[in-house]
Amino acid sequence: MRHFFRFYLFLIPLMGVQAQTHLSDMQQLQWEKVAPGVWKAEMGALKLNAFDYAAAPKLEGLQDLGEPDFPLDKKATLGQKTPSLFSVRMPLGETEKIYGLGLEFQGLNRRKNVYALKVDHYGGVKGFTHAPVPFYVSSAGYGVLINAPQRVKIHVGVGNHKDGKNPAPIDRTTGKNWPARPQTDAIEANVAGSGLEIYVFAGKTPLEVVQRYNLFSGGGALPPKWGLGFWHRLHTKSSDADVMAEIEAFEKHDFPLDVVGLEPGWQSFAYPCSFDWDPGRFPNPEKFVQGLADKNIKVNLWENPYIAPSSTLFNDIKPYTGSHMVWLGEVPDYTLPKARELMLEHHQKNHISLGVSGYKIDEVDGYDQWLWPDHATFPSGNDAVEIRQLYGLIMQDAFDDHFKKQNKRTYNLVRSSYVGAASKNAVIYSDYYGHKGYVTALVNSSLAGLLWTPEIRNARSGEEWIRRFQTVCFSPLMMLNAWSSGKKPWSFPEVTDMARDVIKLRKRMLPYLYTAFHAYQTQGIPPFRAMVLEEGYTNQESLSKAILDGVKNPYAEQEKLEVTDQYMMGPSLLVAPVFWGEEERKVVLPQGNWYDFYTGKYVGNGETITITTELSKIPLYVKDGGIIPMLSEEDENSLEVRHYGEKPSTYTLYNDDGVSYDYEKGAFAQTQLQAIAKKGKWKGSSKATGEKAYQYRNLNWVWMGKE
Amino acid sequence: MRHFFRFYLFLIPLMGVQAQTHLSDMQQLQWEKVAPGVWKAEMGALKLNAFDYAAAPKLEGLQDLGEPDFPLDKKATLGQKTPSLFSVRMPLGETEKIYGLGLEFQGLNRRKNVYALKVDHYGGVKGFTHAPVPFYVSSAGYGVLINAPQRVKIHVGVGNHKDGKNPAPIDRTTGKNWPARPQTDAIEANVAGSGLEIYVFAGKTPLEVVQRYNLFSGGGALPPKWGLGFWHRLHTKSSDADVMAEIEAFEKHDFPLDVVGLEPGWQSFAYPCSFDWDPGRFPNPEKFVQGLADKNIKVNLWENPYIAPSSTLFNDIKPYTGSHMVWLGEVPDYTLPKARELMLEHHQKNHISLGVSGYKIDEVDGYDQWLWPDHATFPSGNDAVEIRQLYGLIMQDAFDDHFKKQNKRTYNLVRSSYVGAASKNAVIYSDYYGHKGYVTALVNSSLAGLLWTPEIRNARSGEEWIRRFQTVCFSPLMMLNAWSSGKKPWSFPEVTDMARDVIKLRKRMLPYLYTAFHAYQTQGIPPFRAMVLEEGYTNQESLSKAILDGVKNPYAEQEKLEVTDQYMMGPSLLVAPVFWGEEERKVVLPQGNWYDFYTGKYVGNGETITITTELSKIPLYVKDGGIIPMLSEEDENSLEVRHYGEKPSTYTLYNDDGVSYDYEKGAFAQTQLQAIAKKGKWKGSSKATGEKAYQYRNLNWVWMGKE
Repeated sequence: MRHFFRFYLFLIPLMGVQAQTHLSDMQQLQWEKVAPGVWKAEMGALKLNAFDYAAAPKLEGLQDLGEPDFPLDKKATLGQKTPSLFSVRMPLGETEKIYGLGLEFQGLNRRKNVYALKVDHYGGVKGFTHAPVPFYVSSAGYGVLINAPQRVKIHVGVGNHKDGKNPAPIDRTTGKNWPARPQTDAIEANVAGSGLEIYVFAGKTPLEVVQRYNLFSGGGALPPKWGLGFWHRLHTKSSDADVMAEIEAFEKHDFPLDVVGLEPGWQSFAYPCSFDWDPGRFPNPEKFVQGLADKNIKVNLWENPYIAPSSTLFNDIKPYTGSHMVWLGEVPDYTLPKARELMLEHHQKNHISLGVSGYKIDEVDGYDQWLWPDHATFPSGNDAVEIRQLYGLIMQDAFDDHFKKQNKRTYNLVRSSYVGAASKNAVIYSDYYGHKGYVTALVNSSLAGLLWTPEIRNARSGEEWIRRFQTVCFSPLMMLNAWSSGKKPWSFPEVTDMARDVIKLRKRMLPYLYTAFHAYQTQGIPPFRAMVLEEGYTNQESLSKAILDGVKNPYAEQEKLEVTDQYMMGPSLLVAPVFWGEEERKVVLPQGNWYDFYTGKYVGNGETITITTELSKIPLYVKDGGIIPMLSEEDENSLEVRHYGEKPSTYTLYNDDGVSYDYEKGAFAQTQLQAIAKKGKWKGSSKATGEKAYQYRNLNWVWMGKE
Repeated sequence: MRHFFRFYLFLIPLMGVQAQTHLSDMQQLQWEKVAPGVWKAEMGALKLNAFDYAAAPKLEGLQDLGEPDFPLDKKATLGQKTPSLFSVRMPLGETEKIYGLGLEFQGLNRRKNVYALKVDHYGGVKGFTHAPVPFYVSSAGYGVLINAPQRVKIHVGVGNHKDGKNPAPIDRTTGKNWPARPQTDAIEANVAGSGLEIYVFAGKTPLEVVQRYNLFSGGGALPPKWGLGFWHRLHTKSSDADVMAEIEAFEKHDFPLDVVGLEPGWQSFAYPCSFDWDPGRFPNPEKFVQGLADKNIKVNLWENPYIAPSSTLFNDIKPYTGSHMVWLGEVPDYTLPKARELMLEHHQKNHISLGVSGYKIDEVDGYDQWLWPDHATFPSGNDAVEIRQLYGLIMQDAFDDHFKKQNKRTYNLVRSSYVGAASKNAVIYSDYYGHKGYVTALVNSSLAGLLWTPEIRNARSGEEWIRRFQTVCFSPLMMLNAWSSGKKPWSFPEVTDMARDVIKLRKRMLPYLYTAFHAYQTQGIPPFRAMVLEEGYTNQESLSKAILDGVKNPYAEQEKLEVTDQYMMGPSLLVAPVFWGEEERKVVLPQGNWYDFYTGKYVGNGETITITTELSKIPLYVKDGGIIPMLSEEDENSLEVRHYGEKPSTYTLYNDDGVSYDYEKGAFAQTQLQAIAKKGKWKGSSKATGEKAYQYRNLNWVWMGKE
């Protein structure tokens, strides 16, 4: 040891003191009510704040949920500033399960793990993902958001503060069930930078907690109707003629097509991007976009934010870019309003004014080797880590705002998101391609105010192809993103009809799905949501046998087995996707009677059933009394209204123009549907209010399983 | 967007300024020469400093290497403080290869990657490893150490500062060879906390750079001779009688045994630890240790640093522990001298005074879910992240110091290490168990002042067993750590004789290996070292074909293929381990003639040869003129001195008592061995100096391949 004296000097102030850290050394957090059922505490002061890029809280919706009390013991909510971090400690009950923490691809219950929440290209590392939202929901009915622009590190019921409530240690040699992660009474988190905000959300149920979070973030997105149609992306080298030929092929194969996505090559330069049309491949963009509009097809443009020197935007925006480049393109500092304005002006002039409907905002997630370093500098003076964590969110906000000013709804694709994003008209996607992970991500997205698409890229067989098709048709954005593999919907002839059928089924369900999105917007109820948000369902969790493996499992820890492969769509529909090779699968039914969507037959109640799969069908189940309005096969202004089960029920259908924000001024219609049974005979009635133009003409009731 | 006004306010100071970041905004680093060929610059001020736990620089050795000039363009060495980080930027030539960054298990050339260097349980994440030393060596002949107690994040030739020298971007749609990681002219690194030190080491060759780093860290370790013998660890539940029975089994099977390792159960309580002998399994520890000493067998005790309430050390040390527990044991703050003193007093009284030779210091690496959180607090006031990064190093230092005071050399096992560790008598091990990764780690350890053992735990076949045995016998610590699997050296009868033979071969090579460690200590030359440190060798690097895969390789990046499966032991011996299933392997020979170790036959010169493997032999090659002194099979005070090839040569053999530090006061012997050829007839001579007791009695020259 060199220079040992240093340490003695250091020790002097401690002598005789026997310095100790107690929980009492931490400060109790000071809570302020910021909305009904929502409280905030602060440490330090944020410079960048995700909520500055969120919509204003939906106060009406929050008020409708009531005025509950603070759901935790305030004395047990603590904060502390350590030499380089802000930390918080929140109480955790012995049996609580903790869900959330953003777009994770594995598991549900986050307890007994540590997550370093970093916006990143997902490559299998816990917490490094496209949308690592530091928001968790407890099974005990409350939620906590740690809002910080720096990366939050969170210890979910692991890490024992010595002054907390802890079990006694166990001698590993002679004792039984020695725990590698002993039980703790807290969730602790830390973050670097200038501070953090922490929010508590009350809720009688986990769903109510999520509703409050979503409403506080501005309410959920209400996408344009075309956004809920079928999307297809074309090869990057496609010209306008290639696009037209592809559209003809869709028509020939009788596949619907609502949105065409153009990949990087629509531009004169890409990776980094010019954002200018390539004059060779797209000599007349205005005519091209109009040609698609004539066919009722929208155009979505791929871009990444990094600006090529040859871009017509380059010289103007260059003063507002950061110290480092990405793929040799300049990185705009969109925390500066001027940079944002310049980008939007350019995009308005060159794309949006022509009719372009939105963007695929790529590469805002990125591994460290692709994006800027944490020590990069930006002209705003904002921290590079913070700008990176918020970049995708800020771009979503820029486009949402811009389209809204023109009274148009957009529906974008985006590779990263963050806190407060519920209201954004954007859906996250990823290069990760595990089908099971995709479904888990869909489940987890609902716990974090996010939308996610398990897009289709490729498959190793017709069976896998149709299974992926079915999943994507029951997701927020139904897209074939197979330009790189060259696959078309009809590439596996043995399942082509099935693929067409499931797209058409999804399109028929638009009234139901659109109404679910309306509930997302006004009540914060996710249209696609985790089973743990469903009443009468308890998370299915079991532990594998403990197998000691000196290498892979040195502590013989038990693995947590969870059901993450089913979810709810809208109020009544349970979706249970099937994966390649599964000849049967288990479905966990919540309490209450459940019925097969296709036949209306009773399938079970609060139990786990095992079903034999059919290649042509994605398993769908409807809860007792479920009303599913579907577009009529013959006439798209008429509805087939299905009622399932034995319970009389009501359902309020929502509709509007599907494209504008006029609904905010009352331009919408609602139809109350009611199913009643009198002496064994079922009768449906409806009562429409609001704008006539958005009321459906004919309603044909179908009493599923009862005829 | 909410509260948009914030941003306009923020922008006001920038208006008209068009704020830009230039390299010129960075400060040139101010270099101070701190030793011959070593310079230092500082930013901020470190509180914890790894060098405070290193031995003093070996000035004599550094002076012997000469007084070179500063090897870089000082104007291109820059530093900057960003909102939350200290960053440095160092120049990087177009064709330079960059090695090092600590105990990595994959690859050699770190260029075009980003490493977040964190002491951690290795689980496959780049930079998260047991000894993430922020020291790199350039093929151009200089080295850079970023010494910080916080985690260093380093961008090795990736991340383009826009004011650096950058290539023009390429349009990905129409261009060729679009680079996902464009060429850069710098290595940039950043670190949080209170500051960093940066050191530059000059060197005509990469080896000379490494020598300077090692000498600056106090020179390499010189282990006790028993440490270079055969180690065996016993089952955690073993009693004193079980140990004795195991020793008898070794004798019966004619396997040498130099060190017995006891696992957690030697203690009355473990995980966390009491550090007190279990009165049931070890009722008379003094007698037990003495019994082993009588058989010339040393005792090594496993421990982790976390203190059980039942420990006799507990009450005394409790005031000097951190806020959080590990496995419900208290975490001593060993940056406080008092904590260190209490631990050493306890260990002296209970183990060391009985004859215990050293420790296996486990669990100082640990995943986040096992150890303390980054926001833990410690009574010294030191940052929890910094304490964790240095914990293993500090414990090594404590034991080294303590044993040295008693004029005894120890040889410990340890799970983590860091900057400045070259002089420590400790070898790193890991739960990771890939055989190829183990060899790569051995190679990389030599580039970072570390020792590493590819211990044997288990095998799926006799072939794998013997292949792992052979590798471990050509490593700094030859250990069977198979207590969990229950395997013994003779568990695979078909290879038992081969296992015994390779242990005996290693033991015969002790004079050569011990001399190599002496060179490590006095000249900083690693005894086991990467081929890239060998003259006449150039790193074999090729790129795989670029295969676009939308999922796994979206940018069609070429994979770097490197040779990481061979290394040098001592001055002349090239070791090329064979892995399970390899019937042949390639060996890359540096410039000069090379000879088979076993036969003396010429095998090649500066070329890649393909050899057919033999199960009983690990391939070993000797360079032209190589002299390998080996203990005689008959008499361990006599030597068989082998000479290989056609080149007359000399070699200076080192010897001392092998256990104490008396060599520092001159108690050693050196023997100059000289091989000359006169008219085709070879003749060997020797000249001994120093203490007679350490001179070998008889020298028998063997002219390999020439008879």
